[in-house]
Amino acid sequence: MARIGATEAGGVTRLALSDADREARDLLRRWCEEDGRPVAVDDLGNVYCGRLAADAVVCGSHLDSVARGGRFDGVLGVLCGLEVLRTIEQAGLRTRRPAALVNFTNEEGARFEPAMMASGVLAGTRDLEQVYAVADREGRRFGDELERIGYRGAPGNRLAGFEAYFELHIEQGPVLESAGIPVGVVTGIQGIQWCEVAFSGQQSHAGATPMDMRRDPLAAFARFAVAVRDLARRGPDTAATIGRLRLIPDVINVIPGRVELGLDLRCPERERLDELLRGAHALARRAAAEENLDLEFTPFWRSEPTAFDAGLVDSVERSAGALGVRTMRLISGPGHDAKYMADLGRAAMIFVRTVRGRSHCEDEDARWEDCEAGANVLLHAVLEAAG
Amino acid sequence: MARIGATEAGGVTRLALSDADREARDLLRRWCEEDGRPVAVDDLGNVYCGRLAADAVVCGSHLDSVARGGRFDGVLGVLCGLEVLRTIEQAGLRTRRPAALVNFTNEEGARFEPAMMASGVLAGTRDLEQVYAVADREGRRFGDELERIGYRGAPGNRLAGFEAYFELHIEQGPVLESAGIPVGVVTGIQGIQWCEVAFSGQQSHAGATPMDMRRDPLAAFARFAVAVRDLARRGPDTAATIGRLRLIPDVINVIPGRVELGLDLRCPERERLDELLRGAHALARRAAAEENLDLEFTPFWRSEPTAFDAGLVDSVERSAGALGVRTMRLISGPGHDAKYMADLGRAAMIFVRTVRGRSHCEDEDARWEDCEAGANVLLHAVLEAAG
Repeated sequence: MARIGATEAGGVTRLALSDADREARDLLRRWCEEDGRPVAVDDLGNVYCGRLAADAVVCGSHLDSVARGGRFDGVLGVLCGLEVLRTIEQAGLRTRRPAALVNFTNEEGARFEPAMMASGVLAGTRDLEQVYAVADREGRRFGDELERIGYRGAPGNRLAGFEAYFELHIEQGPVLESAGIPVGVVTGIQGIQWCEVAFSGQQSHAGATPMDMRRDPLAAFARFAVAVRDLARRGPDTAATIGRLRLIPDVINVIPGRVELGLDLRCPERERLDELLRGAHALARRAAAEENLDLEFTPFWRSEPTAFDAGLVDSVERSAGALGVRTMRLISGPGHDAKYMADLGRAAMIFVRTVRGRSHCEDEDARWEDCEAGANVLLHAVLEAAG
Repeated sequence: MARIGATEAGGVTRLALSDADREARDLLRRWCEEDGRPVAVDDLGNVYCGRLAADAVVCGSHLDSVARGGRFDGVLGVLCGLEVLRTIEQAGLRTRRPAALVNFTNEEGARFEPAMMASGVLAGTRDLEQVYAVADREGRRFGDELERIGYRGAPGNRLAGFEAYFELHIEQGPVLESAGIPVGVVTGIQGIQWCEVAFSGQQSHAGATPMDMRRDPLAAFARFAVAVRDLARRGPDTAATIGRLRLIPDVINVIPGRVELGLDLRCPERERLDELLRGAHALARRAAAEENLDLEFTPFWRSEPTAFDAGLVDSVERSAGALGVRTMRLISGPGHDAKYMADLGRAAMIFVRTVRGRSHCEDEDARWEDCEAGANVLLHAVLEAAG
């Protein structure tokens, strides 16, 4: 699978609905059909393998990648799911509920924004016609490209219901590696609150304005950045990041008149995310007041935290324990299709340790023994749910 | 004079060697010649009015402006100098040494970089041929434009020597206004040290990287910004400014891998400027070490401090005292042609209070009574130096 869209540096470029994505889908379909497993495609291009039913135990993830991404992000969950189906069949195991696999269309949002597009439509948070109309940078539309690669299926094929949804994915962060643990039991997905923050003062000449006569928004920004970081470090699983920053006018010998920044706040609990937002706002107000500046603080986008199903989370942990696989509980920072699946029913995730925590890059890596451990945990969790 | 290059918002655009600059020069020339004063132009386009001699007492400044600049920056010193010559003549005063006036070409550096170009050639710090070859953004060269406006004079007309040089200028900062004092006795020009500073860490995902596993260069930057500001606030007349900043990659949900900034350090004394530089470097090293980051700290440009002639500074202060004009001593943050004149001989400057400290903008302003007070101080200082 990693040969499809392979890059010279060892990664893959398999943008959603590209020729490489079609090739990957075709290969998945062939592998399934060779084993006599039914394959269905819905009107979003989601590919389902195995018997679907309202009580199916579904595992899956996505085959698409970012540009120059890695060989594990998404695809590992699809292939481990396929391996689970094969193993159940080859071992001749009978389960009360059917097991199935799904490959979701355009999880990455790298070509067609936003991310988790098809699972978002299933969950009712996105509109199908709007999704079809989304264009990439060359102006090609999602709906047309879905048609072009031959994966615009029937609305009736959409996932109607499920008993449980499991998604195995590489962690994409450093937590498991630094703890020396191969597999993570994911308890939920962090809530995200984005804010646009601007400090405004008095633009003036660096030479002509003594330190004590300045209204320097960068000074307030620096104090705010130190303080909001300290605030986020205090809470468990909370984070505050300033990744985007703009000085106006951005000239070496001019005290800026305005500093604008994007603030990313994360927390796995809704109330504590609200608290973090209020705390950050208070710190910004204090920094602005201390420097006699004007403040604009505008929360502009939010993704509520997702808590995975407690029973499934326990089941994943129990399965790992029975297999002797060491695990720890953790929260997912990035979003995944499992977030929308959790809106529709019971869902949980399994993380596989990521080498150096690196992802969305060509040197993304995971150890095969960790992948195997994760796949075995997935198998046993699926078997428990499928009865 | 302010009608030449006037902007709708009450400022002027009189870029060096533009048609507006020619018009302003022509007007100055006409005003001088009408009174029978000789006018000479040197090969840099500097315009000299009055009798030049090795013991001349020269006052002057510049008629050029930045784009959408004010009506006072530069031109006030030229017109006050002209008024001084007129007053001495009209009063029939005889002085042992002649008084003269100079308009320096391209003080601003707004069209042809760098600033203080012609006085820099006089002082031997810039090369004439290189200056002639400097092009503006449209590719027009300094030498050609000087020829085009008819102000390429004879090398023999260059200022050969002087007894004293006085430059009156608006302060361009808030110090006099906040002290409630109309006229400043300028003791020197601040030294400037520019540094390129870069903190490098590990670019990573804001959601997937817990706070305690980050190597975030913005965190180090914020601590450094707070600390270097505190350092600069401690010393008298020292300043540290961060006016230019770049995050790489500058995306809201990505912990930057690198933060680059321009640091502007100022101090009126060479040794203390060195000390400030060493202190800033140490603070950057400490911030980088505390966050486990790599640091690049590169001083890349320096302008040494200028101390004006103590005798002339005293004379300016004495003249103001005799006139009942309240003054205070201060340092000039911005550079002026007087900086290079101080390399060639005895020089001093007089500052006029600037409304709200605003300069290099169309609402730059000064009160007429302050301009008058400054002009009178200039007159008396010139008379004392001219004997």
